[in-house]
Amino acid sequence: MIAEILSVGTELLMGQIANTDAQYLSRRLSELGIALYRHTVVGDNPARVKQALGEALSRADIVITTGGLGPTEDDLTKQTVAETFGLPLAPDAKSLAAIEALARRAGRPAAENDRQQAYFPEGALILPNACGTAPGCVVEAQGKTVAMLPGPPHELKAMFEGQLAAYLARRSGTHIESRFLRVFGIAEPDLENRLRDLFHCDNPSLALYCAPGEVQARITALAPDGAAALGMIAPIEAEIRRRLGEAVYGEGMDGSIEGTVFELLRDRGEAVSFAESCTGGLLAARLVGVPGASSVFKESHVTYADAAKARVLGVRVETLEKYTAVSSQCAREMAEGARRISGADWAVSTTGYAGPDGGADGTPVGTVFIAVAGPNGTRVEEFHFQGQREFVRTLAASWGFNLLRLALLA
Amino acid sequence: MIAEILSVGTELLMGQIANTDAQYLSRRLSELGIALYRHTVVGDNPARVKQALGEALSRADIVITTGGLGPTEDDLTKQTVAETFGLPLAPDAKSLAAIEALARRAGRPAAENDRQQAYFPEGALILPNACGTAPGCVVEAQGKTVAMLPGPPHELKAMFEGQLAAYLARRSGTHIESRFLRVFGIAEPDLENRLRDLFHCDNPSLALYCAPGEVQARITALAPDGAAALGMIAPIEAEIRRRLGEAVYGEGMDGSIEGTVFELLRDRGEAVSFAESCTGGLLAARLVGVPGASSVFKESHVTYADAAKARVLGVRVETLEKYTAVSSQCAREMAEGARRISGADWAVSTTGYAGPDGGADGTPVGTVFIAVAGPNGTRVEEFHFQGQREFVRTLAASWGFNLLRLALLA
Repeated sequence: MIAEILSVGTELLMGQIANTDAQYLSRRLSELGIALYRHTVVGDNPARVKQALGEALSRADIVITTGGLGPTEDDLTKQTVAETFGLPLAPDAKSLAAIEALARRAGRPAAENDRQQAYFPEGALILPNACGTAPGCVVEAQGKTVAMLPGPPHELKAMFEGQLAAYLARRSGTHIESRFLRVFGIAEPDLENRLRDLFHCDNPSLALYCAPGEVQARITALAPDGAAALGMIAPIEAEIRRRLGEAVYGEGMDGSIEGTVFELLRDRGEAVSFAESCTGGLLAARLVGVPGASSVFKESHVTYADAAKARVLGVRVETLEKYTAVSSQCAREMAEGARRISGADWAVSTTGYAGPDGGADGTPVGTVFIAVAGPNGTRVEEFHFQGQREFVRTLAASWGFNLLRLALLA
Repeated sequence: MIAEILSVGTELLMGQIANTDAQYLSRRLSELGIALYRHTVVGDNPARVKQALGEALSRADIVITTGGLGPTEDDLTKQTVAETFGLPLAPDAKSLAAIEALARRAGRPAAENDRQQAYFPEGALILPNACGTAPGCVVEAQGKTVAMLPGPPHELKAMFEGQLAAYLARRSGTHIESRFLRVFGIAEPDLENRLRDLFHCDNPSLALYCAPGEVQARITALAPDGAAALGMIAPIEAEIRRRLGEAVYGEGMDGSIEGTVFELLRDRGEAVSFAESCTGGLLAARLVGVPGASSVFKESHVTYADAAKARVLGVRVETLEKYTAVSSQCAREMAEGARRISGADWAVSTTGYAGPDGGADGTPVGTVFIAVAGPNGTRVEEFHFQGQREFVRTLAASWGFNLLRLALLA
């Protein structure tokens, strides 16, 4: 099945928003094994929508449109599809009742253009809108299919996940399941090498997505039913976990390395404190970004100047003089100082040159020392990150969480 | 002049990235007064790129392509444009020398596919790449124009701003100048109302862009030469500054409220410290994100637990018991404590409920107190932010910087 996406909306051509709808649908279609060859964006102009729709239908089996389903004069996707297929627009009783109920609750009669949202090309399959007023629909005609989704991203996403994904799977006679594994500390090319033989299979399929410091692996299976799909995923997942071991830090689309650290600490009833120099508060800010963080995090210190490292954390002046602040020794004393003054079970420190400059002593930019102090002692690691200031700081914070995670698992 | 955007990249059709290049170009074309009727995205497939390019050229005067200029086999935009116009690919000596110099610095000879980046359709105007290896180019042939830009957004942006915008203005016989004013603390609808009469003009034109907590106003003028364009911008800029006063915190596309605070502190030779609860390190992390931050920032404390507020910052236990930690009184003592222990000239504190829950005493989620302590005393403000946890924390940090900025200006 070959698909195209046709997005209708002058706001896209004016650059007021990015076409995240097309990105979302593209990902999901790829996972469903549906070939997607083109995105097109046109404005709210009847002639240009009609032309683009006709062209897309000449190339693809299914065209998914986004936008143009609302109550204003600019909303003309359904009319254009109806005209293209020579179908009349007909009211859907359920949709009409829902729109009238909504208007009654707002204490006014439903306006004619509100009611317009309940008219669909005759014979369409209606897709109710769980998050907004304009329903979507699917029209099958002349051997082609047009699925119409609303433009607001949260409405589109809910309608796709709740209704259109299943429709598409039914159409291809399959059920789809996916599993996301989150991998930290292995670069993408290295990961590709380690999993190379697993990429040769189309179903279940394996895809990698990069993020700073981590890679996400998605395993997707298509099968006649959900249990069969999950059964196809399980051995691949087990094999990936066997090969990557502790580098797999979590699961799911919404995980994060700090979220995993939070869960490990919470489950043990332990707390962490940070002593940050080059990350400048990022470790604390990211952990506090996890709802419920207060159960594992009480306080943290950003000691950017040498004097603050000494006064706040108790780093020895001799250490700073002999080794400088960007040293394994300083990182160790920072972490141990933070653990001591906070009374936390664990402490993580960072000290390094994030850029634009390296050290006056020739230490290159990107050099970062990270220490983890815990009940069984302190461990320090030295990193040489490549990239701009923000990237080095982000990676240093992520590695701080990862080293703590590994210490918690040890 | 009618334009279309043609984006080439399988990563767009796979949904790995959103088409932010198209959004950026759309905005800028709209500001340049160039009509844009369509975006098209195709994958790295020669036949489909060629078909889409031919269609776009049949409708538009100028097609701007993004992507497909790099060194890999998949990069085929220039080849496709050359074929379409029946032009040979010819090497550009300067680009070739730059690519060979880069390879020498990396200690290897330039590979054949690196050199490919220095070949362009014969007669093309070369657009050097300030941020990457692959230059862009502009081809004028058969009464049409194709401008080819690289896919990576920062490369595309720099090439458009530094070179293509001026080319497009020249083509339309005009010179373009823009000025960005950064506005903090006025919501977009309110700002629209205050500037309503200034939107009625097409040249110079005024456009607003929203970001969390701030709005950016861009004034754009088209004129026969730069001086005339700047002369048209000046009175509008003066009028906006007159109406908005200190709400205009900066200028330029790359400014930030923390960048402005950094400059104010640096120019005065003063330093700031933070005492963060709900922002959890964001204030420190954002200030440290500004290169050179060490001259104005020495240390900072994240006191998430009540006990840490008392022990680290000296907040009185009676204050915490009587008013709770989310109170004007606590914010004041946090800021004054941070100023005292750090010895900094200024201190900013935050304490509030970022969500998902509000206070056990019924204080609603989104309530945040921010205090600024300085040489002339302490000022506290209460906020009620609407939104998710991350958004509330981001806004609280931004307002922390803004209150400090206003105190520095007072």
